Amino acid sequence: MAKDSVLKIGVVGYGYWGPNIVRNFMNAKGGTVVAVSDVNPNSQVRVRSLYPSLEVTGIADDILASPEIDAVAIVTPPLLHFPMAKTALENGKHVFVEKPFTCSTGEAEQLIELADRKHLRIMVDHTFLFTGAVRKIRELIDNDTLGQLYYYDSTRVNLGMFQTDANVVWDLGPHDLSIMDYLIRRAPEAVVATGEKHVNGVEDVAFITIYFPDKIIAHLNVNWLSPVKVRTTLIGGEKKMLVWNDLEADEKIKVYDKGVKRTNGDGVYDLRVSYRAGDMWAPRVDQLEALKLETQYFVDCILNNQTPFNDARAGLRVVRILEAVDRSLSNKGGIVYL
Amino acid sequence: MAKDSVLKIGVVGYGYWGPNIVRNFMNAKGGTVVAVSDVNPNSQVRVRSLYPSLEVTGIADDILASPEIDAVAIVTPPLLHFPMAKTALENGKHVFVEKPFTCSTGEAEQLIELADRKHLRIMVDHTFLFTGAVRKIRELIDNDTLGQLYYYDSTRVNLGMFQTDANVVWDLGPHDLSIMDYLIRRAPEAVVATGEKHVNGVEDVAFITIYFPDKIIAHLNVNWLSPVKVRTTLIGGEKKMLVWNDLEADEKIKVYDKGVKRTNGDGVYDLRVSYRAGDMWAPRVDQLEALKLETQYFVDCILNNQTPFNDARAGLRVVRILEAVDRSLSNKGGIVYL
Amino acid sequence: MAKDSVLKIGVVGYGYWGPNIVRNFMNAKGGTVVAVSDVNPNSQVRVRSLYPSLEVTGIADDILASPEIDAVAIVTPPLLHFPMAKTALENGKHVFVEKPFTCSTGEAEQLIELADRKHLRIMVDHTFLFTGAVRKIRELIDNDTLGQLYYYDSTRVNLGMFQTDANVVWDLGPHDLSIMDYLIRRAPEAVVATGEKHVNGVEDVAFITIYFPDKIIAHLNVNWLSPVKVRTTLIGGEKKMLVWNDLEADEKIKVYDKGVKRTNGDGVYDLRVSYRAGDMWAPRVDQLEALKLETQYFVDCILNNQTPFNDARAGLRVVRILEAVDRSLSNKGGIVYL
Amino acid sequence: MAKDSVLKIGVVGYGYWGPNIVRNFMNAKGGTVVAVSDVNPNSQVRVRSLYPSLEVTGIADDILASPEIDAVAIVTPPLLHFPMAKTALENGKHVFVEKPFTCSTGEAEQLIELADRKHLRIMVDHTFLFTGAVRKIRELIDNDTLGQLYYYDSTRVNLGMFQTDANVVWDLGPHDLSIMDYLIRRAPEAVVATGEKHVNGVEDVAFITIYFPDKIIAHLNVNWLSPVKVRTTLIGGEKKMLVWNDLEADEKIKVYDKGVKRTNGDGVYDLRVSYRAGDMWAPRVDQLEALKLETQYFVDCILNNQTPFNDARAGLRVVRILEAVDRSLSNKGGIVYL
Repeated sequence: MAKDSVLKIGVVGYGYWGPNIVRNFMNAKGGTVVAVSDVNPNSQVRVRSLYPSLEVTGIADDILASPEIDAVAIVTPPLLHFPMAKTALENGKHVFVEKPFTCSTGEAEQLIELADRKHLRIMVDHTFLFTGAVRKIRELIDNDTLGQLYYYDSTRVNLGMFQTDANVVWDLGPHDLSIMDYLIRRAPEAVVATGEKHVNGVEDVAFITIYFPDKIIAHLNVNWLSPVKVRTTLIGGEKKMLVWNDLEADEKIKVYDKGVKRTNGDGVYDLRVSYRAGDMWAPRVDQLEALKLETQYFVDCILNNQTPFNDARAGLRVVRILEAVDRSLSNKGGIVYL
Repeated sequence: MAKDSVLKIGVVGYGYWGPNIVRNFMNAKGGTVVAVSDVNPNSQVRVRSLYPSLEVTGIADDILASPEIDAVAIVTPPLLHFPMAKTALENGKHVFVEKPFTCSTGEAEQLIELADRKHLRIMVDHTFLFTGAVRKIRELIDNDTLGQLYYYDSTRVNLGMFQTDANVVWDLGPHDLSIMDYLIRRAPEAVVATGEKHVNGVEDVAFITIYFPDKIIAHLNVNWLSPVKVRTTLIGGEKKMLVWNDLEADEKIKVYDKGVKRTNGDGVYDLRVSYRAGDMWAPRVDQLEALKLETQYFVDCILNNQTPFNDARAGLRVVRILEAVDRSLSNKGGIVYL
Repeated sequence: MAKDSVLKIGVVGYGYWGPNIVRNFMNAKGGTVVAVSDVNPNSQVRVRSLYPSLEVTGIADDILASPEIDAVAIVTPPLLHFPMAKTALENGKHVFVEKPFTCSTGEAEQLIELADRKHLRIMVDHTFLFTGAVRKIRELIDNDTLGQLYYYDSTRVNLGMFQTDANVVWDLGPHDLSIMDYLIRRAPEAVVATGEKHVNGVEDVAFITIYFPDKIIAHLNVNWLSPVKVRTTLIGGEKKMLVWNDLEADEKIKVYDKGVKRTNGDGVYDLRVSYRAGDMWAPRVDQLEALKLETQYFVDCILNNQTPFNDARAGLRVVRILEAVDRSLSNKGGIVYL
Repeated sequence: MAKDSVLKIGVVGYGYWGPNIVRNFMNAKGGTVVAVSDVNPNSQVRVRSLYPSLEVTGIADDILASPEIDAVAIVTPPLLHFPMAKTALENGKHVFVEKPFTCSTGEAEQLIELADRKHLRIMVDHTFLFTGAVRKIRELIDNDTLGQLYYYDSTRVNLGMFQTDANVVWDLGPHDLSIMDYLIRRAPEAVVATGEKHVNGVEDVAFITIYFPDKIIAHLNVNWLSPVKVRTTLIGGEKKMLVWNDLEADEKIKVYDKGVKRTNGDGVYDLRVSYRAGDMWAPRVDQLEALKLETQYFVDCILNNQTPFNDARAGLRVVRILEAVDRSLSNKGGIVYL
């Protein structure tokens, strides 16, 4: 696109998350929303009352195939991501799509091939990568504050949201999997997952281990049946360790000057490690709305012909782990190499 | 023993935990400590200054084989549990032994056989079973407050204590494994464990899933490399769910009147489950020292010729899972059926 | 008004709080917003973009004197409450006005007299009285769960918001003073207030004691210079005690079955009181938006010709205490009888 | 005393706090306990069983007048502090005495005069001044990390301990008053106190303001009727602000890089202050037992002929404020100049 033109965006899906997508793309510099579709008539009414100037439709293809539209945002249940993204790409549109990118690696690979062939961009909405907290942790890893990583251990549990076409891993897992991908920056080697189906035939509780090179181990505890909401991640490094509690209003990240060192003991009962415990430090974390940054970044990438870091290949990496998790779950554990 | 006699107890090991054992057995009704041994001369000095009347020795066999002693408490590193308990039983003594009971199921079975043959009692120090919190949770399960159990999910992490002859699972795991055994009261079916060795050649981080009948799933997160201490267990049931935070001074257990129900949806996008969220309730929990209750219970069981519920067979059940965990860990997460 | 007509509301002031007032009155059953005024052109632009159908003006009197309007909401700095409410009442309009009602009891009394004479309603926006938390506490007092009240002790501190025309008491105090008025339901007898002016010539830290009959004592700690935000109130009663932490997402109110009883000791060193400590209980609190309930209540009161409980007289009771606080502050803590 | 001799200490009172005093003086370098008295026979039995070598008596004067004893620790109810300290001084003994030093300033002044005349030392047990937390805060003030102080605001509430011969201020207040004295290091100018007597004829709830020079204001909220235990102090400075939560196990002190600055606004509605919010930092705090440091310091002061900083004059400064509080309380507030 010409750099001074305005990117015309159509949004498909106006349920729980769609309103945030529309609001943010409306306010993006260089972009604007021109049309919204949703099969639910009530959603259509809501769009019309808030944005009387927008075209509203019940038929997604009105948007996916519209010659007036440059890019589409697909904010639908996951099963529809692939067919809709495919149609959009075939009609020459850039694609912004919710997580998980697709329901299989095969679908993801098809979309990547298609977008490459047509010189179109795909961005997957891994919103957390745009939060102040995740960007700060990335900084602490990149500037070697934490040192060599030991582990990433996340607990992401709450009561619901049960879905009928996905288990708790496909619902809650993409957040942590995309964050790990962004922070650890190594290709995972293998996955082990366990879980149980208590309520409606899909796993509502699951525990996932991901092995990375250099003894980095990641763990993810996801649960739709927890009485309390927890969003806590522990990250251990050789030099420092941190706790990220995303439910804290002000001190989301606490960095601990704590560590362990191997030492030489000479007797049988001597401890061979020693501990270090110093100050704790909670760096100020940027409070800007992550989705605002991300939608702006999408518009900028397209206007400037750049590949976003959260592109379809990043989306594929997450889907590959999700597939491996399902395979391990169906064996009640058991290692799945990637 | 005659019911009105006093049980004479010898304590082997006066390191970190031994002083608590000695203090409590000193104060038990119907029992008393008569001798303490420790290889460390400093420990011997400490005993002598606090309890000038006790016999103190550096040689464990002085106690294990003493004709003056009715029962021994073995408060040593785990490797010594088996040989010392064996000597004690062979010399006709009842045995109180630290957790983990032994370092293998074979050892545990030998001790059980020996004790049975000699009509002696073994009790394994699973102290947590005597806390007000665990007893209250057992009550909430037994009186069906929670309903059918869904999951038991424990996080037990802190910085250290690294050991040279055991990994983090054998160090921290016995607490939860004995609690699960006591609360769930079903034979576990299989174990899956993952982990990593970062510092001194044994696993310092581990994640363990235990499958029980009727879709009860237990999970245990143990970690010697955490910057913060966490002792939190979530227990989900069909009727109610609870959070047990053992680090809370006053409200260790919170019971949530929350739940999920299957419902009939008729459209593709209808949710098929509904949620219920009511009051939270923190029952008052007995604050008596658990070890005081447990040591008294040991004395009472022997004086009254009763089998303790935390006997060698309970100890064996825990060791059996620990062995299975090690086997699964060595396969990086393969399932091990029990 | 006729019961089936729609109440036409004009809103004066569209700064920090105004948008919430407009949004809620727009959605009230039986009422609607027809016009908004604000002196700030940016605010006018914001109204127009969100609500293209509304009349927007920079001149408050366009609304206060408009023959098309039945009621006005005054959402301006406190200094303007009195002159604007007066104009509105003189022009036959019902009035919804922000807290504090007025800047003096004299002003409040004038408005009450004027409204009475013209048979118009005034409601003061004491939003907290419509929260689930305050309504639940009122219920616990009314049904005698707490028993005879001992004290109400609130801490309401944060960093800023500094104002130029009011001290921290007039800024943060009306919340607690209106809540006390609603919960305690007794006429306060006297006030003692201390504080200090560190930054801009008005008190930024203040401590207020209010004496009620029957030994009920209330205390309020307000502070614009606190590094952390605190919104915690302890309420002690003879039978039970509660803690209301308004910053908790889910368990805002915790009721403790704790108490103290006088007992007869017979020796000099005998304690003459005994303690009782039982369960804690966090009742589920309604999560509806308080302002939505309150704006609907305003519309309903006018349509049904009822006096709201948070009327001008309730507003006057709060202003009377604020005036007394200022008088006590100027004496560095002398008692001011009410 | 000669520098190489051992200070022989007698302890009067072995109730709640006495055992800690005896244990610590037993372990002090250069000092030792030789005798303990308590009127309660059960207390005498407890001393004998733990310390068979000590002389135990029911008569305080056996200790206060013993020619064998160099110094006495008075660990009795406050009413006995004065007569016992007087007897001890008259008999040539140095005195370590619990807080509050005495029950009146007159008593305190008499003891100071007597000790000075006889060249004896008095130390008042303001234990908190020896905690890692208070020493760290003093360091942050002394090295100007906080900048000019604005306020000290402490909440010290719990259920009980009711006393028959003192109100909640004399029970809980000395802690904060001695800490303020140590941290602020300015002579207080005036006191305002309010409170109420609900249960046994003395104030069980009280709120105290203390005015210092340079607009430093201190506030203290003490309460025997709180369902929860709170030990939280906010300290605001021009450069930084801190929260000290003494109930936190690991992060007792949090220092906030937050502040407020006067700025020039040019319009009526312009804010005239601006806020700054940066990182939070929890410095590591020394975990040594405060009483161990303090008892060693007492022994060292006497052996080295030094005046302790927590001497009788420090004790008198605390008692002077307590007296002023009582006077203000009896007026239901009202300023009392010091």
